[in-house]
Amino acid sequence: MAAEIVNPRSDSDTGHEGEEEPFDPAFALHRGGKMAVEATVPVRDKDDLSLAYTPGVAKVCTAIAEQPELVNDYTWKSNVVAVVTDGTAVLGLGDIGPEASLPVMEGKAILFKQFGGVDAVPIALATTDADEIVDTVVRLAPSFGGVNLEDISAPRCFEIERKLQERLDIPVFHDDQHGTAVVTLAALRNAARLTGRTLGELRAVISGAGAAGVAIAKFLLEAGLGDVAVADRKGVVSRDRDDLTPVKRELAEITNKAGLSGSLESALAGADVFIGVSGGTVPEPAVASMAPNSFVFAMANPNPEVHPDIAHKYAAVVATGRSDYPNQINNVLAFPGIFAGALQVRASRITETMKIAAAEALAGVVGDELSADYVIPSPFDERVAPAVTAAVAAAARAEGVARR
Amino acid sequence: MAAEIVNPRSDSDTGHEGEEEPFDPAFALHRGGKMAVEATVPVRDKDDLSLAYTPGVAKVCTAIAEQPELVNDYTWKSNVVAVVTDGTAVLGLGDIGPEASLPVMEGKAILFKQFGGVDAVPIALATTDADEIVDTVVRLAPSFGGVNLEDISAPRCFEIERKLQERLDIPVFHDDQHGTAVVTLAALRNAARLTGRTLGELRAVISGAGAAGVAIAKFLLEAGLGDVAVADRKGVVSRDRDDLTPVKRELAEITNKAGLSGSLESALAGADVFIGVSGGTVPEPAVASMAPNSFVFAMANPNPEVHPDIAHKYAAVVATGRSDYPNQINNVLAFPGIFAGALQVRASRITETMKIAAAEALAGVVGDELSADYVIPSPFDERVAPAVTAAVAAAARAEGVARR
Repeated sequence: MAAEIVNPRSDSDTGHEGEEEPFDPAFALHRGGKMAVEATVPVRDKDDLSLAYTPGVAKVCTAIAEQPELVNDYTWKSNVVAVVTDGTAVLGLGDIGPEASLPVMEGKAILFKQFGGVDAVPIALATTDADEIVDTVVRLAPSFGGVNLEDISAPRCFEIERKLQERLDIPVFHDDQHGTAVVTLAALRNAARLTGRTLGELRAVISGAGAAGVAIAKFLLEAGLGDVAVADRKGVVSRDRDDLTPVKRELAEITNKAGLSGSLESALAGADVFIGVSGGTVPEPAVASMAPNSFVFAMANPNPEVHPDIAHKYAAVVATGRSDYPNQINNVLAFPGIFAGALQVRASRITETMKIAAAEALAGVVGDELSADYVIPSPFDERVAPAVTAAVAAAARAEGVARR
Repeated sequence: MAAEIVNPRSDSDTGHEGEEEPFDPAFALHRGGKMAVEATVPVRDKDDLSLAYTPGVAKVCTAIAEQPELVNDYTWKSNVVAVVTDGTAVLGLGDIGPEASLPVMEGKAILFKQFGGVDAVPIALATTDADEIVDTVVRLAPSFGGVNLEDISAPRCFEIERKLQERLDIPVFHDDQHGTAVVTLAALRNAARLTGRTLGELRAVISGAGAAGVAIAKFLLEAGLGDVAVADRKGVVSRDRDDLTPVKRELAEITNKAGLSGSLESALAGADVFIGVSGGTVPEPAVASMAPNSFVFAMANPNPEVHPDIAHKYAAVVATGRSDYPNQINNVLAFPGIFAGALQVRASRITETMKIAAAEALAGVVGDELSADYVIPSPFDERVAPAVTAAVAAAARAEGVARR
């Protein structure tokens, strides 16, 4: 996102030292932060204190020492997620460091609470070393029921997530990858239903081979998509390229059955689906070259890869990442319910099946109201989080990763 | 503390699977944990979302990237403390591990909030290696305004605190050491005032050379105490002992001007002050051998080193760690206000001067109501935290460690 640099101290001429609010309402809203901790038990008198703290608490500690799983019953662990970042890929701003990433992590934390009833704590780390991040999160894990990785740059994000999943028995979920993939699949399912097609009939092109692009490609294939090609800045990721990172080499093996090579634009000729997670721009003729009844999901924020007005000239369904157009592909539709469902049943991990169940539940909320401008629910649709939560919990139970 | 082992699942005969509350009210109170996160800004509609999250948040992130100190204005960082433990010295239970320590850390967190208005997050670590703990906390530090170390066993706690203070520019405070020392000094000041003496006239004996004993000895000397001898299980820490750890060797250099050696009991003969932070028992004849107008602060919980009924036969002032006797030496009198004051002025550390200011403010709350049964205020006295907060903030400013 191409955010303007705003100096919040520079817009005042009152002369009061350091107390002026900048003109932008975002600064006023952020003053003092966006979240707080609250006690959920009373501490009004010494009787309260002797239960919530010493001496009463000692019995609870001893019980957990004897039966470790009781920590989930008698502390907030089983409802609290660490929102972990290193500040290297924050929104579209890039590597702005841990402190500057905190407003996003706080935002994420309050969305967890508001939409999923899940407590969440921002953890912005002063290291970008993948092994140090992994070791740090493993050491933090006793205090948390799950780990949401956020805004960590590719390709380190893949390695960090994989290693954490290997070492921890609580859900570890990189939302930039999987949250985006789940919501994209939900929108795609409904767009296919609207136009009377199955996923297997569709060929997609993804612009962007970062965290989101890689995850969306893999996930849509898992879900049964016919074919997908992923393009990075040098063009379509294909086996004949010799400049690929290990992650992209793996991608070349499983994507692009059509054997495309060359530019993103050329790959779009005849394609059924465009998925933009790159922040670039797709020229109108390339959009025009897509198959009839195409879908354009241009998710870059604030500037979609294809402007919706252009996309609507050619596509049957248009989605963006923006809240001021219909069909907003917004991760908040997925991550609160996914974690809420996983935590509810104390799942040891979040599996592909659980993510597909989340996408289907999300798509299902649209139901009979399905239309070209309504393939995905609003983030404020109160049916969303309960539906996703229930579907994820049920899938975890069915798959045997639930512990209650 | 000699807590009974209670199996919270074993006290039911209803046959309902896993849903019975145990008979103990502490378990009922702890079910689901004692704390939660709350949003302090609205997220009701897409306009709210566009300010608290994308796209509005990007401007705040960018501003912090340009001026890092703004993180304190526009996130919760400057009001949130990490309550960090490794679970090795939890209450009197010892090394029960990180998960079992969480109820205590949550208790601490809600006391921070209730008494100091400070947000706090339990961080129980899956490592007991001092260097790993230090590295981990350094990596977490961007997200927090301060670090409260808790229930980490001696002597590692000393090294961990020192290294963190060297590497971080936010307050790092091991409450088992300094919180206890501050409240002890406050009680001692008032006891001395009650009996018309200065600290310089008093000789004290401390039972226990762990985190609390070491810190109390050093701090009371800083504050002007005449002399103090510290006894561990082998007797008085003195220069002629050859079995001392480095921490105790340092203690031997600065304490015990009287050149005592031998048992705790022998050191008490003629002493003015007994301070118990050991959990042992002091025989009545040793208490009887103390100087006239002595003070007995028997702080072990739940069994004081000297029972108050015994202590009152000989001492002018008796204090314990228990809430059911007068003069409770309770850390909650200190740590919320100390952190609140330090955070209010964004102090880079908590200095000796700030801690002494905290103790004086705490002693000052008692004022003209001073009596043998009232040398320290109640934890529920609403004057305490504001007085400590203001004194600590003022001391930080005076000493030049405040950043606002």
